[in-house]
Order: sequence, then structure tokens, then C-alpha cells
Amino acid sequence: MPTPLDLGGNVVDLLRALIDIESVSGDEQLITDQVERALRGYPHLEVIRDGNVVIARTNLSRADRVVIAGHLDTVPIAANVPSWVTGDGAEQIVWGRGSCDMKGGVAVQLSVAAALVEPRRDVTWIFYDNEEVEESRNGLSRIAREHPDYLEAGFAVLCEPTNAGIEGGCQGTMRLMVELTGVAAHSARSWKGHNAIHDAGAVLQLLAQHQPTEVEVDGLLYREGLNAVGITGGIAGNVIPDRCEIEVNYRFAPDKSPAQAEAHLRHLFAGFDVRVTDVAAGARPGLDQPVAAEFLAAVGGQPSAKFGWTDVARFAALGVPAVNFGPGDPNKAHADDEFCPAADVYSCRDALLRWLG
Amino acid sequence: MPTPLDLGGNVVDLLRALIDIESVSGDEQLITDQVERALRGYPHLEVIRDGNVVIARTNLSRADRVVIAGHLDTVPIAANVPSWVTGDGAEQIVWGRGSCDMKGGVAVQLSVAAALVEPRRDVTWIFYDNEEVEESRNGLSRIAREHPDYLEAGFAVLCEPTNAGIEGGCQGTMRLMVELTGVAAHSARSWKGHNAIHDAGAVLQLLAQHQPTEVEVDGLLYREGLNAVGITGGIAGNVIPDRCEIEVNYRFAPDKSPAQAEAHLRHLFAGFDVRVTDVAAGARPGLDQPVAAEFLAAVGGQPSAKFGWTDVARFAALGVPAVNFGPGDPNKAHADDEFCPAADVYSCRDALLRWLG
Repeated sequence: MPTPLDLGGNVVDLLRALIDIESVSGDEQLITDQVERALRGYPHLEVIRDGNVVIARTNLSRADRVVIAGHLDTVPIAANVPSWVTGDGAEQIVWGRGSCDMKGGVAVQLSVAAALVEPRRDVTWIFYDNEEVEESRNGLSRIAREHPDYLEAGFAVLCEPTNAGIEGGCQGTMRLMVELTGVAAHSARSWKGHNAIHDAGAVLQLLAQHQPTEVEVDGLLYREGLNAVGITGGIAGNVIPDRCEIEVNYRFAPDKSPAQAEAHLRHLFAGFDVRVTDVAAGARPGLDQPVAAEFLAAVGGQPSAKFGWTDVARFAALGVPAVNFGPGDPNKAHADDEFCPAADVYSCRDALLRWLG
Repeated sequence: MPTPLDLGGNVVDLLRALIDIESVSGDEQLITDQVERALRGYPHLEVIRDGNVVIARTNLSRADRVVIAGHLDTVPIAANVPSWVTGDGAEQIVWGRGSCDMKGGVAVQLSVAAALVEPRRDVTWIFYDNEEVEESRNGLSRIAREHPDYLEAGFAVLCEPTNAGIEGGCQGTMRLMVELTGVAAHSARSWKGHNAIHDAGAVLQLLAQHQPTEVEVDGLLYREGLNAVGITGGIAGNVIPDRCEIEVNYRFAPDKSPAQAEAHLRHLFAGFDVRVTDVAAGARPGLDQPVAAEFLAAVGGQPSAKFGWTDVARFAALGVPAVNFGPGDPNKAHADDEFCPAADVYSCRDALLRWLG
């Protein structure tokens, strides 16, 4: 059993302690136990444990309630645990799996949850499992299904890495298969067949030449993307292939519904055999709403668009405006050289204290 | 132990008996034993057993010696053993795995080997294993390496299916990988990466637009082919792929050496990263040589070019002119509905008897 987490101490030390408890998706039992135990030490919080999800909330009958959420799991370790640091003071950097995505955010959540005995707004702190894997295992998604009341709020903050700035909403994501069909034949007599892989050339040229759109939504600029993310074809080294499949990923701005995104792609791939395999709606940034504006004012700085899909879309689906706000560079999420600047951690902690304190 | 093979009886019954002894590559022990035992019943033949290769030869000190060869193995069974027949008389068809490729040819060899006690030319009959699998296991290739004297001859006939006509020489075959390299990135921020699969589009368009050459060699017309036979790329559904590989198969006319074939492809794919993974030289038809001309006259009909690569190229490499000549439609080789017309079997047997009798 590791040393209990110290929520009242230095938040960067807390971050390192969190990294040092390995918690690859599916293996969150230990970190969840530790988070639960630490939070139960604060009587101003009602603590609920549900599977590997921990919910801690104040019940002060404030006019507003906000949700602040983060996931406890990471992608697989890459010889980057335990944590280490480089630099000092304002230049200090914390390295290790999860430092950026998103134990930096979790450390901020835990530190502020412990410090704020009487927040100005009621807060529901959520710590959940299995964010880095398939949707069907996602802890937040399960809670939204089984206990939507736990997520009731006027506003939500997801502490995913945003370089300690506010990133509004998120783009939607759709995956589809473009399937080419030919006729198999021995490659020594190729004219008796029809090569499905050769037909894929036209689809790839179309993708290579496609200019992704930039779309402004609620004042933020979203940059779309349309990419082949997989291709497979071929039977044997001496057979003309009768089949080739291209997997395409479309990242679409939150002005489009999934149905509109699909219609756009069907138009683009007219004449090809297209099958949608997966879709997740985006979330509008919602920064025009009053509760979001107050958060913006407390944090300061210019908000920007979130490009990657995040669980803010789950809140959007429940009618709760939500933003991403957390320490660390999102481009370093999942990288082997993942890291988080200590300054980001302090700055996020201070901003939440200003907003809620 | 099955009934011994009857080489002196009806050649179509012999074909059916051969089909009924399963002999998928690597599992030729039983059929080799049967072939060896049956041949040892004929004192005019010297029989040599070497692994799962059987060599039977006359030693009559004739001015010429010819080799007549066939492989005993088949591709895997597809619910098509034991054999069955449809039709009668001239219309009879024998069905089953190996009927076409190439137990029809083996039946002709065995029947003629038994019947011709005093052939006009000395004959070396060869029955070998592992033709349908990788080169390193090929029984004929092993004999060529270990006992090239067994293959000494002025002319060779390989009884692969040719619709009972003469198919001269064979095309060469070369496989190469075209490798595209990009930069991985999260697909939500695709502009930070470079999509290797998109780059493959230009290669596939080049292949789709390529017009294969037709080349006349020693009076026969060879039709080349250049085809993608495999493609693979992609890391995950949310990652811009940094790698895509296209496997290309080039079937080249026997006027080109492997080096010339490679130079041609390197010119065609100039600017792309190309790696040759496999090559087998073709074989010129050699039908302008006297010994081939006599065979042509005995068989009759118009010779044509062989498109698929066959073991005639091994004889060509040893300086022995060689042709393909056997019962069955080469397009039915490896097909689940593989079959062989009885008329082809009789016609090939009669032609060999005319030539050698």
C-alpha cells in the first residue's frame, strides 16, 4: 500500500504521487482507492464510490452547482513511471506517464477540493476510469447512464490538458470505411481480374487534395480534418486483390450534427461504397452563456477551440455547457516524452480558487 | 495402406487414384511411397528415391535424353477429395483437388513411363514435392542443387496444365515494396502530421494508369502485368499514419533479366522508396531449338506463351530448354471447383507415346 495521498500539501508533489501510482485503463483500482481514502478525510465533502468512479461534492445549497471532472486512467506506460522532474521554480517540469493526460488536472482537482471548505458555488468533483479506451467502458458515460443526477449542474469543467487556457467545446469525430471491390485472378493473368487496390488510388487522391474547412462556432475557430487512418487490401503475393478497405476519420466542427457530417462525406465520396462505423457528436463551446462568461472572467486569457474529442461532449449531450481547462500541452498527451509544466499546475489551481473561493 | 497404383490400367482411373491420396504440400510421404512402389514394378526403369522425390529413368544409351517432370503436392483440400466424375466418354470430367494442378499430368507421366519399355529417347521421369510452397522447400530445386546430374537432358517437359497444348517458357516474377513515410500526429490535429496513406494515392494512380507491355520472344507473345497485390497502413483510428506499404508484383516477359526488370521498375517508381523482396527469372520458350521443334511436330497444334511462373525456369537456368505440356485448364489450378477433362489426359498420353515411342 503506497503512502496516502496528501491533498493539503504541495500540488506538484501530489501530481508526482499520482503519476507514481500506475493506472493504465482497466487497472484503476489502486488509484481510485487512494483518491477515495484521501477525500474521505475532508468532512465538507460527501464522497460516493461507484465502481472505479469517485464523486465528492459539497452540499451548501448554493444557487449554482458546477461539475469539475477528470479521468484517473492513462494510456500504457512507456518506461516513464515513476515520475521525475527537471528544472526549478517557475521552470520546473514534471515528467512521466499521465503527467499531461491528465494527472496534472486531477492533482489540481484534488488540491482545490480539499482547500475549498465553503466554495461560492456547490461543486461536484468527479474522478473516473477508462477514458482512454472504448466508449462502452468509459466511467463517466456509465454514470451519465446510471446516475444522471450525479452530473446535474449549470456548468462543467473537464480538466484535460489545455496549456492552462480555456478550450471551448470539441469537434465531433466520425469513422467510416470506404470499400473497393474488384475481381480476384492470378497475378500472372491479371487482365482476367480487376484490381481493387488500384481503385483505391482515386479515393486517396481525393483525400490528399481535400482542403479541410475552418468553421467559426460561437466565436471560436474550428479546423476540420479528413484523413485516411488505415488501409488494407491483398490476398497473396500472386493474386489480384478483389477487396481494399480504407478507414477514414473525419473531425468535424461542432456546427454540424453527426447526420450533417455523414451527408457531407456521402456527397464527397459519391460513387464509392461508404459505411459509417463510429460517430461521436461534437460540443458547441457555449461560451456565450452567462455561467461560462463568469468562468472566463475568473481565468482570464483568450479562449480557443478544442480540436480533439473530449468528454465535454457528454455534458453537452446532457444540456450542461462545458469547457476544457487543465495543465499541460495537449500535443504531449500519449507521447512517450509526456510532461507537464509545474507553472501550469499552479496557475490552474489558482484560477479555480479565484472562481470558486 | 491404399490399393497399389495400377500404372498399366486406364489412365483416368489412375488420375482418380492419385487424387484420392491427399498430398497437400508437406504431406507427400504416402503418395511418394505409392509412386515409388508402383514404378519399382517395371524392370526397364532405374528408380531412385531421394526424400520425397522419385526419379525413374531408362538407360538405353540413346543419343538423346529428355526429362519429363511433375510435382506430387497440391494446395490445401477444399472439400474436394475424394474425386468424382461427371459425363461420359469424350465428355467425361474428373473433379477434385489436384485434378488440374497437376495429378492429371502425373497420371500421364506414370502411365507412359510404364508403357514405354524401349523409348526412342532415354527418359528421366521426375516426381517431386513442395512445388506449391516457398522456393526453399521445392523438391526439384533441391535436386538441382544436390544432384544436378539427375537433371541432365537435351530437353525438358513439365506436365503442368496447359489445356494439353504446348506453352513455351514462362514469365519472370518480381515482388517489391513501395514504402511511403509520413509523420504521425493525433487525427484531431492532422495538420501537425503528414499522412503516408494519402501519399500512396500517387503510386496507386500510377499503377492504375500503367499500360502493361506485350513482348514477342522466340515467336511467342508475352503479356506483362504490374499490380499492387497488397497494401497496409495505419496505426489507430485517431492517428495520422506515418507509414504505408504497397506490395507490387511485376510479371515480366522472358526477354528481360531480373536486373533489367528491376531497372524498369526503379525508373517507373522514380522518387519513391522501393525495395525488391523477391524475384524469379523467367525462361525463354526456346522453341527455335531442334529438339523442341521435334516435340512440337509430335504434339501438333500452335504453341503459346506461358504467363505464370513455373519450374521450367529451373531447367532454363541449367541450360535445358523446357516447355509446359499437360492436361487441364491452368485457370482452374487452385480453384475450389478444380477439374480435368478426361480427353486432355488421353490426348497428352497419346502425344508423349507418339514422340517417344
